[in-house]
Amino acid sequence: MASLRNGAGPFFRREGDVKVRIVEVGPRDGLQNEATPVSTQSKAAFVASLAAAGLHEIEATSFVSPKWVPQLGDAEELWPRLPTGPLYSALVPNLRGLERAVGLGVRRIALFTASSDLFTKRNINMTVEESLAVAGEVIRAFRKSVPEGFVRTYVSTAFECPYAGRMAPSVTAGVAGRLHDLGADEVAMGDTIGVASPSEVRSLASTLEVPLSKTAWHFHDTRGTAIANVAACLELGYSSFDSSAGGLGGCPYAKGAGGNLATEDLVYFCSREGFETGVDLPSLARASLPVLEAVGRSPFARAQLAVLAAS
Amino acid sequence: MASLRNGAGPFFRREGDVKVRIVEVGPRDGLQNEATPVSTQSKAAFVASLAAAGLHEIEATSFVSPKWVPQLGDAEELWPRLPTGPLYSALVPNLRGLERAVGLGVRRIALFTASSDLFTKRNINMTVEESLAVAGEVIRAFRKSVPEGFVRTYVSTAFECPYAGRMAPSVTAGVAGRLHDLGADEVAMGDTIGVASPSEVRSLASTLEVPLSKTAWHFHDTRGTAIANVAACLELGYSSFDSSAGGLGGCPYAKGAGGNLATEDLVYFCSREGFETGVDLPSLARASLPVLEAVGRSPFARAQLAVLAAS
Repeated sequence: MASLRNGAGPFFRREGDVKVRIVEVGPRDGLQNEATPVSTQSKAAFVASLAAAGLHEIEATSFVSPKWVPQLGDAEELWPRLPTGPLYSALVPNLRGLERAVGLGVRRIALFTASSDLFTKRNINMTVEESLAVAGEVIRAFRKSVPEGFVRTYVSTAFECPYAGRMAPSVTAGVAGRLHDLGADEVAMGDTIGVASPSEVRSLASTLEVPLSKTAWHFHDTRGTAIANVAACLELGYSSFDSSAGGLGGCPYAKGAGGNLATEDLVYFCSREGFETGVDLPSLARASLPVLEAVGRSPFARAQLAVLAAS
Repeated sequence: MASLRNGAGPFFRREGDVKVRIVEVGPRDGLQNEATPVSTQSKAAFVASLAAAGLHEIEATSFVSPKWVPQLGDAEELWPRLPTGPLYSALVPNLRGLERAVGLGVRRIALFTASSDLFTKRNINMTVEESLAVAGEVIRAFRKSVPEGFVRTYVSTAFECPYAGRMAPSVTAGVAGRLHDLGADEVAMGDTIGVASPSEVRSLASTLEVPLSKTAWHFHDTRGTAIANVAACLELGYSSFDSSAGGLGGCPYAKGAGGNLATEDLVYFCSREGFETGVDLPSLARASLPVLEAVGRSPFARAQLAVLAAS
């Protein structure tokens, strides 16, 4: 029995055929749901480790009111401490947040809405329509201040809302189209409660009218489906994915359960399938360890555990 | 914004279109790698809970020498305590094991080999060829004693060997074909170290000469790729998968890392994709809790955690 050794790269595709773009959201989407606060210094060190591992786009913080998200209340302190190199974005909920962000030199903003009224009502006390009006205001003001800036947008509950149940693809695609029409450079489709499976991804994708190059996918791995969804997206030609180092970020609707797709799992999968991410997995596997320790969690992302166990 | 509520079933496919067959391997493949021994009584209760959750095929134990796998050394005590209902199989390494099994009334046996000589040499001190000779002997003897019995076989290291590296699909397919020719009713392709991704699954599948209906897939989720691999298999028309309740069973080659695909993740995925498994997920999510506690582990399977958090 002969075996064919080929440890260096994928078996059936040459490495580097296609690039996958990862937007690392751990410092923002990951930390905002953690109960234990993390110091500004630890956050800056975390971001520096992520950058050193090769992550090129990082959502670093949020300019939401500290009243609502105290964990990210140090945006003004953190922003100047971010190491140069990566492209950083920050969540901006409204004109007040935009003012704070632009004052600090933020050039990439992220805006949030959802496809479900019940979800936006409970989260930001607006209807989806009202939140789109705010997004329009913020985008126009941002373009005036920072004409070359980048606007990413989130459609939360893209597949299912914890209050309203399953969302029709046409409804989600409608919201995504509105954001695109408002001038968003990118629309990220969020599986907020981590329930979706590939056939739903394909259904939504077939309904979307946002160009592939402007669409990102923000999967949560709450029930273990995120990587299968990424696989479906890659087959459809999408190449932008959000993820969180170490899988940081529990889902507030399922206490104790996992939340964001772990960047380690995403990087491993892409690499094994022959897609280039530019990320060094062993470095990435160590990047979130201090922050995990700070929030009192043991590592739990699968590829992270596998890499740590092997080293 | 209207939302389409449809909590009862999958969105794009009617439930019950296709059945997925799950072979639950937790009591055997899961427990054999746990360091802490589990009492016979706990094992019997575990199997009873799995059966009550709707699992119809369960690999209950192993007739390997207790010297090698002390955790399953109580096969003789356990077997008569298994509740009626499910179809039970047991791992049988050789004629001596077969004699013990048949004496107890075992009617479904499982045999083990691999595609890599280095792996079989280190695990069972035989070449693959020698292990196939043993498999042939055992199958012939079993057919004589139990003509209507069922023979399942495993090809471990189907994609990659921890010692020899990547395996050529033709080599793995060759071993699978030999097992089929020896009269196996089923050949399970094992991603022993949990590294494979869907393109590898498709490559191997395209090379296999075993009928779809006689092929099962035994994925490990060590790096989070198992469900994506299941998705690839379902698309190819396969419908038999091995999994382990609670994800029980660490991988001996990556300490602390995950091992077997969790049955909870598999059941959730199938159900969301519109495949019928016959398993009740909330019952299943609780089935492994006593055993997890006995071996000193907290639940970690994603869909299990999500279900437990919601209940």
